[in-house]
Amino acid sequence: MHDQDHPAPAAPTTRVGVVGLGAMGLGMARSLRAAGFHVAVHDLRADVAADFAREGGAAYDSAGDLAADVDVLVGVVVNSAQVESVLFGDGGAAHRLRPGSVYVMCSTVDPAFSAQLEGRLGELGVRFLDAPISGGAARAATGELTMMTSGSPEAYALADPVLDAMSTTVYRLGDTAGLGSKVKIVNQLLAGVHIAAAAEAMALGIKAGVPTEALYEVITHSAGNSWMFENRMAHVLAGDYTPLSAVDIFVKDLGLVLDSARPQKFPLPLSATAHQMFLQASASGLGGEDDSAVIKIFPGIELPEPKPVPTPAPAPASQKEN
Amino acid sequence: MHDQDHPAPAAPTTRVGVVGLGAMGLGMARSLRAAGFHVAVHDLRADVAADFAREGGAAYDSAGDLAADVDVLVGVVVNSAQVESVLFGDGGAAHRLRPGSVYVMCSTVDPAFSAQLEGRLGELGVRFLDAPISGGAARAATGELTMMTSGSPEAYALADPVLDAMSTTVYRLGDTAGLGSKVKIVNQLLAGVHIAAAAEAMALGIKAGVPTEALYEVITHSAGNSWMFENRMAHVLAGDYTPLSAVDIFVKDLGLVLDSARPQKFPLPLSATAHQMFLQASASGLGGEDDSAVIKIFPGIELPEPKPVPTPAPAPASQKEN
Repeated sequence: MHDQDHPAPAAPTTRVGVVGLGAMGLGMARSLRAAGFHVAVHDLRADVAADFAREGGAAYDSAGDLAADVDVLVGVVVNSAQVESVLFGDGGAAHRLRPGSVYVMCSTVDPAFSAQLEGRLGELGVRFLDAPISGGAARAATGELTMMTSGSPEAYALADPVLDAMSTTVYRLGDTAGLGSKVKIVNQLLAGVHIAAAAEAMALGIKAGVPTEALYEVITHSAGNSWMFENRMAHVLAGDYTPLSAVDIFVKDLGLVLDSARPQKFPLPLSATAHQMFLQASASGLGGEDDSAVIKIFPGIELPEPKPVPTPAPAPASQKEN
Repeated sequence: MHDQDHPAPAAPTTRVGVVGLGAMGLGMARSLRAAGFHVAVHDLRADVAADFAREGGAAYDSAGDLAADVDVLVGVVVNSAQVESVLFGDGGAAHRLRPGSVYVMCSTVDPAFSAQLEGRLGELGVRFLDAPISGGAARAATGELTMMTSGSPEAYALADPVLDAMSTTVYRLGDTAGLGSKVKIVNQLLAGVHIAAAAEAMALGIKAGVPTEALYEVITHSAGNSWMFENRMAHVLAGDYTPLSAVDIFVKDLGLVLDSARPQKFPLPLSATAHQMFLQASASGLGGEDDSAVIKIFPGIELPEPKPVPTPAPAPASQKEN
């Protein structure tokens, strides 16, 4: 533990931990610190955690050690395997969290997994909040996320000030875990299909010889618009595939959408098709590029070239990746 | 001809004809009349044309007779077969339009067909404007359409005041016919895929037990939103499948999208999947219902029941169907 504590005046008394300092988790830990919380962190990359703590808060060597010292543990890891490892792996948090404390699960996972977690932690006296996030890294850093949450009143009672510090909008969807994850899954279904549809539409327009800037202008003011078309096709027009959210994220998330429906034998034809498009992009070596690079699976079209950028443009404050 | 002419003061001198008085054409004819034009009309249903003329303007028995008396002929028929019939069928308009007059084609057609029409009419000295429309019946009636246009400067010179009277936004995409239709095709690709995706997402949410009102609230404020999700899922929540735009319109339009790409051997995986979903809906007897009824192809879910409506609600002014 590397404690470098600089509590803000009138700091909230709830002790908060954040596990997973990726693009989202790091921004969320910073916005919690900016809100006056004492924020303790853990990441498998010890240097990333130490870097964070240098400006306030504390870095811990394991999720378990961190868990023992906090009231609210916010988990911002990528998938259910990582959640499992954080909670129940070697040096895991589940058995170190004190009874009455709460684990806030911000990962995108199968809703059934989330519902099970509530039960498994409940047996240890630990509360659980199903709390997937939306908004992207820029909003995470400014405390402007959207959270899709569900859980018991007791879990909310402890977690609420923490949620409010990270988010502009907290949807409270019900009193059992899983509902938040279900809504997140539906959102990811639409987000993934809309990115692939935007790519298909823009590709057809280019193939037909429509000027791309004019096409973008018309569509973003017409009934064919989507949040994703407007956001992601701007990347295509700029020829900039720097990953804000990568192709492989939607290989994962649309896979999760399909996995969540299969046990109920529920058909999702568009999700399945869009998933294949992201798989084809990933198999073509585009997995690490921005998800808008799914347009590169369409052959025989000339995409806009990267525009020369004299000075690095700041990320727009309203950036929201998924 | 049943002339019942009531010219407004300071009426524009351009004589305008409208062929096709469906939900769109009737509204457009009315907004032209409201703008002060003398508007002559023709519809295969003579009583509909006569009804229009009762409040001003003139009704004609054939497209050809109408064509001979106007400077700008606006065609608002459903598909390329009807355009062909209006222009080159028995009593058709092409050979009756005077040299220098202009045909404004508002139908959604294959862009290649539109480009050919420009040439065929050009041989007769008649100008042509490729001018598909977007916005729906309510906006047509208030002169607030969006038009996606292309054509020669000479065609625009005559048609511009007419376009402006019908629309709040006229996109001028280039100087040859076909570009307007290409952009409209891309818009219909997105609109169709987005309606089907909205249905798939809402169906999955219902299957998973998410309250529909909460799901709608979250999605419409998240990155998964689309213009169509917001508009059409409101119909599903209300249990109201009164057709503003019917399932069979997207059977036709997504078919057109696919047809336009096939000669170039260009793949459109999501359009093809969404088209199959609308076909399945139509084959199930839903072809005449609102296009949001595509959600009824998902089995084993309980859709919201129609809400009792004490008084008929007025159509929202911002209604835009496709």
